[in-house]
Amino acid sequence: MRTKLLHEVEGLRTFVVVMDKDDEAMAELMNFAREREVTGAGLTAVGAARDGLLGYFDPTEMVYRDIPLTGQAEVLSFVGDVAVQGTSPALHVHGVFGFRDGSTVGGHVQRLNVWPTLEIVVTETPKHLAKRVDEETGLALIGLDER
Amino acid sequence: MRTKLLHEVEGLRTFVVVMDKDDEAMAELMNFAREREVTGAGLTAVGAARDGLLGYFDPTEMVYRDIPLTGQAEVLSFVGDVAVQGTSPALHVHGVFGFRDGSTVGGHVQRLNVWPTLEIVVTETPKHLAKRVDEETGLALIGLDER
Amino acid sequence: MRTKLLHEVEGLRTFVVVMDKDDEAMAELMNFAREREVTGAGLTAVGAARDGLLGYFDPTEMVYRDIPLTGQAEVLSFVGDVAVQGTSPALHVHGVFGFRDGSTVGGHVQRLNVWPTLEIVVTETPKHLAKRVDEETGLALIGLDER
Repeated sequence: MRTKLLHEVEGLRTFVVVMDKDDEAMAELMNFAREREVTGAGLTAVGAARDGLLGYFDPTEMVYRDIPLTGQAEVLSFVGDVAVQGTSPALHVHGVFGFRDGSTVGGHVQRLNVWPTLEIVVTETPKHLAKRVDEETGLALIGLDER
Repeated sequence: MRTKLLHEVEGLRTFVVVMDKDDEAMAELMNFAREREVTGAGLTAVGAARDGLLGYFDPTEMVYRDIPLTGQAEVLSFVGDVAVQGTSPALHVHGVFGFRDGSTVGGHVQRLNVWPTLEIVVTETPKHLAKRVDEETGLALIGLDER
Repeated sequence: MRTKLLHEVEGLRTFVVVMDKDDEAMAELMNFAREREVTGAGLTAVGAARDGLLGYFDPTEMVYRDIPLTGQAEVLSFVGDVAVQGTSPALHVHGVFGFRDGSTVGGHVQRLNVWPTLEIVVTETPKHLAKRVDEETGLALIGLDER
């Protein structure tokens, strides 16, 4: 992983994070968020992956169900955010992936083994988007007091 | 729905709009745009939905064809814009949704019943992106005079 | 194609590029980037297309495999970037497209014949994201020296 601060306006930073061959994108994004102290940001990416693990939130049992991502795939869409949960960064990324015949698969991104590259643009938002655990689902959701 | 102004640079606001369980996202987004007087903006979101109604523009008859979105789905991609049409906000959002097996479905978003959450980031653009009705298709399209 | 400069903050421009019926989006985007001297930017779009040509990067032979996009499709997701390669703009865009039954297809966008419109928002990043050719794959990748 290599990172570069692209610009900074009124304290809001925009980074490009370039994953290298065989980087696991989610672990590296967590490292990046910790190192650069990113606590609230949006992100998007294009690139490709060797394989990975996606998830689907099962509302009947309130757990994520695993969906294996098998074989080389184009990263067609990769959109999410960085928030904080306690003292750690929390990532929430959804992705759509494409295969040789154009068919697609998608889900909540749990792991993604990059190959040959994934270019992620991370744009900070100025106020902390503190997540809180939702009692019904056990999911970390953004909690906003203003209605 | 809860909303928060994240920041404002030279009059351009960025909001986060968090939909709650069972909110209908498109109706709530219209309410949000009216209340905050958002007339030109881009938006993106991640989250999940219980069900909804998508559309496909049929070029032979110039109408949207309904595509039901049935059952709990991850909101994998949700990208669009807010413009004005006459004196009302006009929403144009396309989405891709994912199911338990990773399969996907997508279309023009007409209705989306959120569960448990949908986090939408809305970023204003400074000049009004006034839409006009295209004569051939009957669609509201952005009209720009500058070539 | 019609283009409009939406705003400019500290030298960073945001454009909207509206493709017209039958425009080939990738060729027009290259024209736009040359004319406006855009050398580093992110882009996203919604709209629809008549047909096109997608690609899948085959890692065993290091070439893009063609995937025809056949028939009217909603442009569900269209995310990418503009970089420079030598003295020319380089586009890297991935897309997901939707059909009448909600089914999807996706890939690296090689050609896209727009109908009736495609609205692209292009947001400049301030430093050149110079691409370099990766020796193993032959692909143009963003090269960052900072680790």
